Amino acid sequence: MRPFLSHPFDDDKLKEECGVFGVVGVADAANFVALGLHALQHRGQEAGGIVSYDPDHGFNSARRFGYVRDNFTKPDVMETLPGSLAIGHVRYSTAGSKGATAIRDVQPFFGEFSMGGAAIAHNGNLTNAAALRRELIERGSIFQSSSDSECIIHLMARSIQKNIPERIKDALRRVEGAFSVVAMTRTKLIGVRDPLGVRPLVLGRVGDSGWALSSETCGLDIIGAEFIREIDPGEMVVIEGNKVESFRPFAPAKSRFCIFEHVYFSRPDSILGGRSVYETRHQIGVELAKEAPVEADLVCPVPDSGTPAAIGYSQQSGIPYAMGIIRNQYMGRTFIEPTEQIRNMGVRLKLNVNRALIKGKRVILVDDSVVRGTTSRKIKDMILDAGAAEVHFRIASPPTAWPCFYGVDTPERSKLLAATMSEDEMRDWIGVDSLKFISLDGLYRAAGEAAGRDAASPRYCDACFSGDYPIAPSDKIEEGFEMKAAE
Amino acid sequence: MRPFLSHPFDDDKLKEECGVFGVVGVADAANFVALGLHALQHRGQEAGGIVSYDPDHGFNSARRFGYVRDNFTKPDVMETLPGSLAIGHVRYSTAGSKGATAIRDVQPFFGEFSMGGAAIAHNGNLTNAAALRRELIERGSIFQSSSDSECIIHLMARSIQKNIPERIKDALRRVEGAFSVVAMTRTKLIGVRDPLGVRPLVLGRVGDSGWALSSETCGLDIIGAEFIREIDPGEMVVIEGNKVESFRPFAPAKSRFCIFEHVYFSRPDSILGGRSVYETRHQIGVELAKEAPVEADLVCPVPDSGTPAAIGYSQQSGIPYAMGIIRNQYMGRTFIEPTEQIRNMGVRLKLNVNRALIKGKRVILVDDSVVRGTTSRKIKDMILDAGAAEVHFRIASPPTAWPCFYGVDTPERSKLLAATMSEDEMRDWIGVDSLKFISLDGLYRAAGEAAGRDAASPRYCDACFSGDYPIAPSDKIEEGFEMKAAE
Amino acid sequence: MRPFLSHPFDDDKLKEECGVFGVVGVADAANFVALGLHALQHRGQEAGGIVSYDPDHGFNSARRFGYVRDNFTKPDVMETLPGSLAIGHVRYSTAGSKGATAIRDVQPFFGEFSMGGAAIAHNGNLTNAAALRRELIERGSIFQSSSDSECIIHLMARSIQKNIPERIKDALRRVEGAFSVVAMTRTKLIGVRDPLGVRPLVLGRVGDSGWALSSETCGLDIIGAEFIREIDPGEMVVIEGNKVESFRPFAPAKSRFCIFEHVYFSRPDSILGGRSVYETRHQIGVELAKEAPVEADLVCPVPDSGTPAAIGYSQQSGIPYAMGIIRNQYMGRTFIEPTEQIRNMGVRLKLNVNRALIKGKRVILVDDSVVRGTTSRKIKDMILDAGAAEVHFRIASPPTAWPCFYGVDTPERSKLLAATMSEDEMRDWIGVDSLKFISLDGLYRAAGEAAGRDAASPRYCDACFSGDYPIAPSDKIEEGFEMKAAE
Amino acid sequence: MRPFLSHPFDDDKLKEECGVFGVVGVADAANFVALGLHALQHRGQEAGGIVSYDPDHGFNSARRFGYVRDNFTKPDVMETLPGSLAIGHVRYSTAGSKGATAIRDVQPFFGEFSMGGAAIAHNGNLTNAAALRRELIERGSIFQSSSDSECIIHLMARSIQKNIPERIKDALRRVEGAFSVVAMTRTKLIGVRDPLGVRPLVLGRVGDSGWALSSETCGLDIIGAEFIREIDPGEMVVIEGNKVESFRPFAPAKSRFCIFEHVYFSRPDSILGGRSVYETRHQIGVELAKEAPVEADLVCPVPDSGTPAAIGYSQQSGIPYAMGIIRNQYMGRTFIEPTEQIRNMGVRLKLNVNRALIKGKRVILVDDSVVRGTTSRKIKDMILDAGAAEVHFRIASPPTAWPCFYGVDTPERSKLLAATMSEDEMRDWIGVDSLKFISLDGLYRAAGEAAGRDAASPRYCDACFSGDYPIAPSDKIEEGFEMKAAE
Repeated sequence: MRPFLSHPFDDDKLKEECGVFGVVGVADAANFVALGLHALQHRGQEAGGIVSYDPDHGFNSARRFGYVRDNFTKPDVMETLPGSLAIGHVRYSTAGSKGATAIRDVQPFFGEFSMGGAAIAHNGNLTNAAALRRELIERGSIFQSSSDSECIIHLMARSIQKNIPERIKDALRRVEGAFSVVAMTRTKLIGVRDPLGVRPLVLGRVGDSGWALSSETCGLDIIGAEFIREIDPGEMVVIEGNKVESFRPFAPAKSRFCIFEHVYFSRPDSILGGRSVYETRHQIGVELAKEAPVEADLVCPVPDSGTPAAIGYSQQSGIPYAMGIIRNQYMGRTFIEPTEQIRNMGVRLKLNVNRALIKGKRVILVDDSVVRGTTSRKIKDMILDAGAAEVHFRIASPPTAWPCFYGVDTPERSKLLAATMSEDEMRDWIGVDSLKFISLDGLYRAAGEAAGRDAASPRYCDACFSGDYPIAPSDKIEEGFEMKAAE
Repeated sequence: MRPFLSHPFDDDKLKEECGVFGVVGVADAANFVALGLHALQHRGQEAGGIVSYDPDHGFNSARRFGYVRDNFTKPDVMETLPGSLAIGHVRYSTAGSKGATAIRDVQPFFGEFSMGGAAIAHNGNLTNAAALRRELIERGSIFQSSSDSECIIHLMARSIQKNIPERIKDALRRVEGAFSVVAMTRTKLIGVRDPLGVRPLVLGRVGDSGWALSSETCGLDIIGAEFIREIDPGEMVVIEGNKVESFRPFAPAKSRFCIFEHVYFSRPDSILGGRSVYETRHQIGVELAKEAPVEADLVCPVPDSGTPAAIGYSQQSGIPYAMGIIRNQYMGRTFIEPTEQIRNMGVRLKLNVNRALIKGKRVILVDDSVVRGTTSRKIKDMILDAGAAEVHFRIASPPTAWPCFYGVDTPERSKLLAATMSEDEMRDWIGVDSLKFISLDGLYRAAGEAAGRDAASPRYCDACFSGDYPIAPSDKIEEGFEMKAAE
Repeated sequence: MRPFLSHPFDDDKLKEECGVFGVVGVADAANFVALGLHALQHRGQEAGGIVSYDPDHGFNSARRFGYVRDNFTKPDVMETLPGSLAIGHVRYSTAGSKGATAIRDVQPFFGEFSMGGAAIAHNGNLTNAAALRRELIERGSIFQSSSDSECIIHLMARSIQKNIPERIKDALRRVEGAFSVVAMTRTKLIGVRDPLGVRPLVLGRVGDSGWALSSETCGLDIIGAEFIREIDPGEMVVIEGNKVESFRPFAPAKSRFCIFEHVYFSRPDSILGGRSVYETRHQIGVELAKEAPVEADLVCPVPDSGTPAAIGYSQQSGIPYAMGIIRNQYMGRTFIEPTEQIRNMGVRLKLNVNRALIKGKRVILVDDSVVRGTTSRKIKDMILDAGAAEVHFRIASPPTAWPCFYGVDTPERSKLLAATMSEDEMRDWIGVDSLKFISLDGLYRAAGEAAGRDAASPRYCDACFSGDYPIAPSDKIEEGFEMKAAE
Repeated sequence: MRPFLSHPFDDDKLKEECGVFGVVGVADAANFVALGLHALQHRGQEAGGIVSYDPDHGFNSARRFGYVRDNFTKPDVMETLPGSLAIGHVRYSTAGSKGATAIRDVQPFFGEFSMGGAAIAHNGNLTNAAALRRELIERGSIFQSSSDSECIIHLMARSIQKNIPERIKDALRRVEGAFSVVAMTRTKLIGVRDPLGVRPLVLGRVGDSGWALSSETCGLDIIGAEFIREIDPGEMVVIEGNKVESFRPFAPAKSRFCIFEHVYFSRPDSILGGRSVYETRHQIGVELAKEAPVEADLVCPVPDSGTPAAIGYSQQSGIPYAMGIIRNQYMGRTFIEPTEQIRNMGVRLKLNVNRALIKGKRVILVDDSVVRGTTSRKIKDMILDAGAAEVHFRIASPPTAWPCFYGVDTPERSKLLAATMSEDEMRDWIGVDSLKFISLDGLYRAAGEAAGRDAASPRYCDACFSGDYPIAPSDKIEEGFEMKAAE
């Protein structure tokens, strides 16, 4: 099942790869982490892990495949995670690696150093991990996982610094890419964001005594924590007792927060970069209605991620909003297909058209993005089968034409519909009466930049739309990836 | 997790107790039944069962606790259910009975008779089951379950009729209450509705060769079946090969379909009694906006079951519709509560307020019903914590003041908030600025009765609102239940 | 894994089908029953069940596939079985029926009657069950299992007697065959043996307040109970409080205890019919050495069931006893066979020849019985592969030439090696230097009948050897089974 | 359940900690390894692991708690282990560490080096592991387990040798203690024994193309492999294709094979150091009968590990051998104890006295060893309860007075009965009529040294009896262990 207000077609969506959470200064911190990870489940559904520390029991860890609610609610698991300091991680594990040994890839990663142990959880992706790994193996490090994130703990192990925060700085100065890291020692909770701040990370106050770090503010809400502030791009915070120390271990850089977090990844009730995600999505709908109006009878979201934009489109256009597609909340894609009669079984398991409503109507469908386009075709089939007079797709993001190398699972470029087709070609391929994407400027306006995108210095990372990569994907270039030619 | 477009607070909702489904005339019928039950999962989430028949393997059965998607998708289960004829059942099992032996209570029930076996699945509740059970035990029947429905199969076993359809008639003429039954012999698929047609049952065509019976039309949609017609109140259909025979085994009666199926139980994409459930719910919102207008900034549904009425209310009132409450789709109520700091943990696991949207706003919350009222209080707390200026509850059903005895799990009468308080008292107890329920007449108008409720001969069963029980609950009366005094 | 001192080749052995156990008058009686069933596990390894009664919680039941030690040791299972009165059953479930619904076949069976509930557990087999079942179904009983034993509970349900002990008498007077039954009401523990006493049942004292019924005395030993006496053939005991009442509900008959219980089924530390099973088996070895001597270097048991007879043979013959075949106690027959190179994989998983010992020796192998003979061939292969100079089989029972219909799972007659071959033909087919079975008279002598078998009135049931069936197998005769022609 | 011909009282026995197995040159090598580990299960019951290599799928690994038969028989596990080269390990995991993360302690360990991956499995114990671990962490290695064996893979990672066999030599020259190692690269199967050859390791031929390494010869037997020879103490073999290369990486030393492998650890059907284990045990019984005769009626083994010595004692003494104690093969120690009435429940679950045999008799009980002595007391109680006239214990090993540091789990010295009591004191404490241990010289004679133990240069490691440690236990000495004072 896919995330919060998400889209039911996992296999045709970009996927965030991780969420991180940490708590210090409260009894049974692991229980708070479990709740925080539950609220961040949409950032990674395949597996999760928690590490806690207690003076009497040392570091303990539990890593499991499956949902947080199914693993980290069991007393026999939670009892193994005592202590007032804990961090956790949820992850999306790429297809195929979920085999017999892949539990090794589940974070947090732990290392025992001469001055004591440390655990880290990483959201993002390191763009020079392959090179670092080669170098570390050459020098005698033994990797336990296939994860890029494991480089960080080995770099820490080899640092000559005498305390762990300094070792983390040493390690993170060697890595490139996107990283929001939550780490812990026996006494400290540590949070770091990469210089560009590609992935989110926020700080919260838990009661009078505790602190929390979370990928999104919704993780603070669930434990009743007060949202204090974002960790700044390039900032490292070290929390011990009541003290929150701030460091700037990296050379200064202009921030480039991921705009797709607003479009799709984050929960609508989160606040990122000072903006409500829901409000951004609603405004995308408003902008779309201005940019791409069409006469119709109904505006319907593709549930659930298209909903806020559809409401915005309806309110701007005056066309009534309605639930034309109903989502089955008891997902499950593994039913045995009884016959070929049932076309598009995968779709039917998750969605049903509200036939009585749709029949004879001109329908605007608002979806968040088009990746391969296969799902858009299936939905169009269902809507037409139900007797719609016209189908108009409105997409709440620009065409996705470039892969992400900063912590999102994207198909290779040739599989992206927008990498090979124009908007009109996509419309014809999908087979709808009209298809319009919001413009990149329109998206920036909806995200609070009234003047649209400043091409000279864009506020956000929008590489998936623009091909403008703010961090060179060096491993991928070595593998043969071709960057966009300079224009 | 609760059902389709449902409300996240299971313990403060009325619960439908069953869904039934059957298919004949297609290869591997059990796979179709699994899909149909998946679409009907909202009618019973705790357990499910399927019986199939194949000439080479006889009758086979699988009964499991848990969701259809988790049990009836496994090849090792489905392989045990061969044949072109199968029926199934999903059920809500009342709290406490889900112990070591309660799998015995999971339907379908099966009986081997001298002329061959038969299986039955029952949606509804028999109001004279206790008396029948005593009588049957006295005569030597051995009950395997605590279910009222088991009486039917024992009455069939003791019938002197020579074929199973006649035995079903014999048995069902002895029972009182609400029943939509799907049954099967080695060659026949059989459907029956009680004389008043309290619970739904529809007939569909599967391809060229097959037929399906389903509690709701959404069960037909998922398998690509064509909706043919409803089974009439008091009708019995016997399907064999291409022939659908219709019988009227009971004395004629005026139909009294359950109006709560429209309000809450059924899926919004189903069509019941010729009406779209979604349309009825949308119209309830329209009626509510007329009956109980209020100045406000936002209309927000309590997700998910309040959504269609909230859209209707918004469109009638002109007040913008918005998602003020966000639902976590990775439910789970068993997290270990870390501290008392986190008030209303149960709510937080399922819902989060969209704080950026709500702050400072006058908010209309549209919910489907109020049962105990405890959830309404918690939601009000959350909304006020998030800084709402005013909170107005609008309820898409009249006050629920009487228990249902026809297949719905209702708290005893003294636990129903509306049984002990006036509307104003309820408003004060919940603690909101205003609280309004739709009137019974308004509900009937929304459900297609332009003139409202005809007290002399109401179209629907509305006993939970009116105390007007169309079938005497004889077992309950024997236990001491007091009917509403004649007015 | 096969039973206590059993033979490792399940598929080439006769199998006892059940063990029964009951306790009254002790706190948490189900825990005692679990222990008793654990001691009786060799009588049925595939499934087990326990029913208990407690005034506050009524009757409770748990039925599980698998070993007692894996199911009835779990606190979450045992907590569901409160009370000071409980009975239990272990069973061998015939191949193929262990499917999705076969848990229904696991005893004890329970019935709710107008005067209260009762549960029964049955060891043995009813020879007129098929006819009874037809009659009961005709009259409206609904069977839940495929077990012959279920007839008993339906006959009880239809009895017009006013108390349960009388209903049990009524029921058991209608059945034919072998039965040792343990039953319980809300206050009484009841034990009954069929008139011929084919299957065992013993009474024990538990501390000062309690009583136990067990198939074998080893079930008393494990709970520290004192062995009081056997239940007599044709006797019924009704135990309540400190009182043990004895009844004789059946016409008197001469007892015919199953001699195979001594040969193989029962545990060697049990005492049956006043005789130590171990002593009988040891004496069989002594008799065999007298009847079938041979020059050799070693006497080796086929582990484990051949051990006592091998010791006896060694002591009588003066040929040294040795462990020529070593049994792997971590059984498991489902390893993936890596190649055809590994002949007789099934054997290798369970046994290994002690090559250093066997090489160049003349070896006498003592086994308990020969059923199909396939295992004997494999063992012979292993012994010869290890370099034995000669192999002589000595079998601790006469040739098994007839199926058992009294509670033992036997292959159909045509599959029994001794039904189609003479002793010499069997020797050649197995491929050993000599093969000798103990004579029927020798077996009787070893079992305490100094004069051998009295053909006019044999002490034991020996139908599997002699074809002399003391109870007519009426269902089987109706199916076409041909009895031995009168001589 | 405890091992092959083992003793049922795990908690009062010394425990071997590991078995290792490897195969190369056969299709689906992991299936062979599974069988080999099954045959070695008695060397480690708590967990097992297999690593395989296949050119198309690289290295794969599966590690599981529980028996080999329960994990490595499943097609879904075995399919993940393709390739013609595989190694495996079974282990005993010390009490308490079997928590959430302890699967990390299950071998084989794997490391990816710059020239490719390697996996190792280790039987034995490194006596300088703590010091090595500190040094490696200081230099930046990250340990994943608490196992001493992990040092080997880190030492390999840091070696500057260019191929893996040379790195193994480098690593093993740094470690001290007992080790029989089986390792693999992408093409090579490697076996090494420490210079003293404390733990066993044998080489076998699998068909025409393959080779196997196994802790014991019984692992070869199960896969039909031919026993070629032992790996010599201090030898390293590197097997690739049809070539077996032999190296001597260590300084020469006189071998000191563990004599307890003969007494208890190894399977009786194995051949170790050119001697049959069964024959050694049988001879121990013969020696015991000579050294410590006593008048009695029966010689009974404490099952199962005392059996061969009991047979030997009986044959030497002329006193009849009998099964006075019967073992329940359906072990399980977690039954809920119903009352205090049942004394020695743990014993009763596993053993029962053959009362009919024992009553009134003078019984000699032959057991393999006495560790804490608690079990001996319980068995004595049972035998006396059954009415034995006299009880004489004869122990097939000298008093166990010193802990083992070479791969056996021993209680600390103060818990060893023989460390604090004389033989007479032990006799009185256990409460038997006589108690005699075989002498150390007698044990050497039984193990093939006609002249007994040569104190100047003993053939075996017998530190657990003599306190003569052939390898200094340096980590333990650092922790405060006091060696035996020089005499």
